[in-house]
Amino acid sequence: MGEGADRSGISRRGLLAGLGATAAATVAAGAAALPRPAIASWDITTDVLVAGSGAAGVSAAIEARQAGAEVLLIESLARFGGSSAMSGGVVYAGGGTALQKALKVTDSAQEMYRFISEAGGRHPPLDKIQLYCEESVAHFDWLVAQGVPYSEKLTTAKGLPMGDESLYFSGTELAWPARELATPAPRGHVPGVPGMNGGRRLMQVLLARAGSLGVSLRNRVAAERLVIESDGRIAGILVTIDGQSQAIRVNRGIVLACGGFIHNREMLQQYAPELYDCSVPWGNAADLGDGINMGIAVGAAALHMHQGFAIAPIYPPENVLSGIVVNASGQRFVSEESYHGVLGDAIAYHQQGRAWLITDKRSAYQFHQDNFLPAARGSSIGDIAAQLALPRGALQHTVAYYNRHAGNGDDPMFHKSQTWLRPLQGPPYTAWDLSVASAFFPAHTFGGLHTTINGQVLNSFGDEIPGLYAAGRTAAGLPTAPYIASGLSVGDCTFFGRRAGRTAAAEAVGSRV
Amino acid sequence: MGEGADRSGISRRGLLAGLGATAAATVAAGAAALPRPAIASWDITTDVLVAGSGAAGVSAAIEARQAGAEVLLIESLARFGGSSAMSGGVVYAGGGTALQKALKVTDSAQEMYRFISEAGGRHPPLDKIQLYCEESVAHFDWLVAQGVPYSEKLTTAKGLPMGDESLYFSGTELAWPARELATPAPRGHVPGVPGMNGGRRLMQVLLARAGSLGVSLRNRVAAERLVIESDGRIAGILVTIDGQSQAIRVNRGIVLACGGFIHNREMLQQYAPELYDCSVPWGNAADLGDGINMGIAVGAAALHMHQGFAIAPIYPPENVLSGIVVNASGQRFVSEESYHGVLGDAIAYHQQGRAWLITDKRSAYQFHQDNFLPAARGSSIGDIAAQLALPRGALQHTVAYYNRHAGNGDDPMFHKSQTWLRPLQGPPYTAWDLSVASAFFPAHTFGGLHTTINGQVLNSFGDEIPGLYAAGRTAAGLPTAPYIASGLSVGDCTFFGRRAGRTAAAEAVGSRV
Repeated sequence: MGEGADRSGISRRGLLAGLGATAAATVAAGAAALPRPAIASWDITTDVLVAGSGAAGVSAAIEARQAGAEVLLIESLARFGGSSAMSGGVVYAGGGTALQKALKVTDSAQEMYRFISEAGGRHPPLDKIQLYCEESVAHFDWLVAQGVPYSEKLTTAKGLPMGDESLYFSGTELAWPARELATPAPRGHVPGVPGMNGGRRLMQVLLARAGSLGVSLRNRVAAERLVIESDGRIAGILVTIDGQSQAIRVNRGIVLACGGFIHNREMLQQYAPELYDCSVPWGNAADLGDGINMGIAVGAAALHMHQGFAIAPIYPPENVLSGIVVNASGQRFVSEESYHGVLGDAIAYHQQGRAWLITDKRSAYQFHQDNFLPAARGSSIGDIAAQLALPRGALQHTVAYYNRHAGNGDDPMFHKSQTWLRPLQGPPYTAWDLSVASAFFPAHTFGGLHTTINGQVLNSFGDEIPGLYAAGRTAAGLPTAPYIASGLSVGDCTFFGRRAGRTAAAEAVGSRV
Repeated sequence: MGEGADRSGISRRGLLAGLGATAAATVAAGAAALPRPAIASWDITTDVLVAGSGAAGVSAAIEARQAGAEVLLIESLARFGGSSAMSGGVVYAGGGTALQKALKVTDSAQEMYRFISEAGGRHPPLDKIQLYCEESVAHFDWLVAQGVPYSEKLTTAKGLPMGDESLYFSGTELAWPARELATPAPRGHVPGVPGMNGGRRLMQVLLARAGSLGVSLRNRVAAERLVIESDGRIAGILVTIDGQSQAIRVNRGIVLACGGFIHNREMLQQYAPELYDCSVPWGNAADLGDGINMGIAVGAAALHMHQGFAIAPIYPPENVLSGIVVNASGQRFVSEESYHGVLGDAIAYHQQGRAWLITDKRSAYQFHQDNFLPAARGSSIGDIAAQLALPRGALQHTVAYYNRHAGNGDDPMFHKSQTWLRPLQGPPYTAWDLSVASAFFPAHTFGGLHTTINGQVLNSFGDEIPGLYAAGRTAAGLPTAPYIASGLSVGDCTFFGRRAGRTAAAEAVGSRV
């Protein structure tokens, strides 16, 4: 068993011990979900139980509470906020949001839909993408109404704003081929706070809102097994509080919003080998796949399990984009100005995890940075190629072709923007290592439970599992590989988390057979 | 719902109708698996039930029967043999099999292990690979003992022997980089019958063997839902015979060997978009994912669901290997002599499904063939590049680089063997379309239920689901993407199918709680 697996949930044996004799007598090997009779008595009862305090869980809790349900939100760690609090807090929104309008930005739901559905991978979830785009303006208004602060400032600089700007091009909209597939617009909406603090601020606001509405928030409570009725309905959940197993009964439903599985090494190796090899698991410590595994244990289908966010953050500074990125054959394979997630996906999934950024005197990193280290330095491209042991003459060939056309302001292969397009010239040349294993290469998982647009979890025959809902990275949502824009994940968490909470709360009390 | 989904199994409502009042009263929405109490009475009882009559199912049935179990094998179609009967019937075996020895072929289990574990994708199932290699000699002896006919003839020609040779290099062993990772040896063991009849012959022999041992074979019986005890143990299975639902009780266990899901369009789109886009679903009509879905419905984990066999069969004739294969950027990306599955994987998974084979006068297809049609014909490489609308000058650059080195008997980028290495020269030049959607591009699925080396199905917490076994393409086995050799799939079916049958039969009668 991998380190991660050892840390994910408790073992069945441990579970039986916690349950005591009555349960132990009933629960047999393989019962990854507990049959209702295994529960001698319920310790806690609530209408809606939400597992996970990230953007998806808290959004679900807010909506469920506002729909009149008694809501208990549990967090396995001491600290609330999930991986969302570690993120930039960007929400991908468009179609003419209040902020876009205030900043005179033209956009439409159609162009937003075109971008998300066509600039990424094949066969994305079109039903979720369409709904997300159609209701994006209203969703942004909701975030504002909750109290999330946005500044009326726009930046056209690439990358998450380090200032307090709240609107920017958070994805690959302006890079080829995306810019030809849909009219670009800045859609990255980020709290107006400097630096990487957007996620913390977003979660502070949403958590405070949940608390003020009367959502009961409990930390250090680990969800472990779902309890299921003989008719397939979810009856409750077994959790551990201070080392004690406790059974929570739900009158309406359970929303699993426990994040992904980037810290579960065994699951990564089995489901997403490309992400296993990335150097930096990017998520909070509770991203162990518990919610996904609890869902699978009761018959849920899981989709996109091999997909994820593999990031090669070569910019800022933007000057390095005048360099070229090459693979182990010394060939270019992507537009260097592509969004981090697009570049990272190309390297991690399609180039066996190996690539280099080749810069010259003017395009080299001009300040000390640790993300990428030099794999080779030389006075000529030939020097570099030899040090990297690339196929003889290949890199020279690539650079000659690139330079000839760049000299005419042209990039026939990947149509790099004029801003950064110029021949590589002027030693020293440097090859920066962009390999998934040795560079700073954060990764996160996208695979999760198959859900409807309302967050209802579906089994392998396409039927809903009564009483079970999922959102955020515990569900297979909007983010698929390649990840084309910051904000699609947290945007998906808040948008579909809200819907899951509403739907769970609407489940009539006592509707159980 | 996709066409395939409509054809896969029956709807829950249909199921309830078939079950009659007692069941309907108990089975509620979402019960994709039937609780034991839903079965009013059992119609049939057996020790071991095997679902599926391909190589995996029949091998399981033979072993279970020989272990003393009463075995019922059901096939949903009229014809027995599954997709295995449509295949070449190749079994990948080595380490010094009787046939290898008779033909003076040197091989070792270590080199076979090195090839399978290192020449394919990342993080393959090492436990299964090791056991498969260690016991390969004995497994081949077993095939011979069952009566499968092999001729003491070897061929070094590429591709499935069209003569009656029984041993050949069935994979990418001799192509770079594989030949540097492990010592190549011919390991494709195919029944000594001319042409594509190996699979039919293999299944004729195994089916006859199963019958003579007393396995009860029933065709036109569709497996639909598993019946599960409250303790998680598999109690039986619901099937449809002549439109009537019948409940089969098992004393020992059920082996799901129902194939993959290449004909279930909805599952393909959700789980394996790259295979969805391939032009030819390669499997028999029953490859609808029923076995996989029945397993998932009772809590099983499913692995490698996006992976599969995507085939670009450019040879024979071998003369075309003197041409070059290029992508939409006009670049080479793989050794043209690579095994079909390696070339197909590179195109379908890593080049957005588009590629062309560029040939000159001598390397062009010399006879009429329909697999690949000309996308461009011209008197110069420039002509071809223009007709394909490749990046200006890119293909010319690629050919200039290739020709310069090929002229010196060198291929720095992909190390093509001397046999086929020479500069492209002498018009007319032809670009053959190798795109997944328009060329002859067969595909099959590899994703399936997570199993132990003994075929026991595991749930999402790594525990065995008592009484449930899976083999063949219903399980996640030896074949992963890229598929590096013919015979790994049928080899996996027969080898691990046997183990699943043995283990199921060993389940002590009445061991149920």
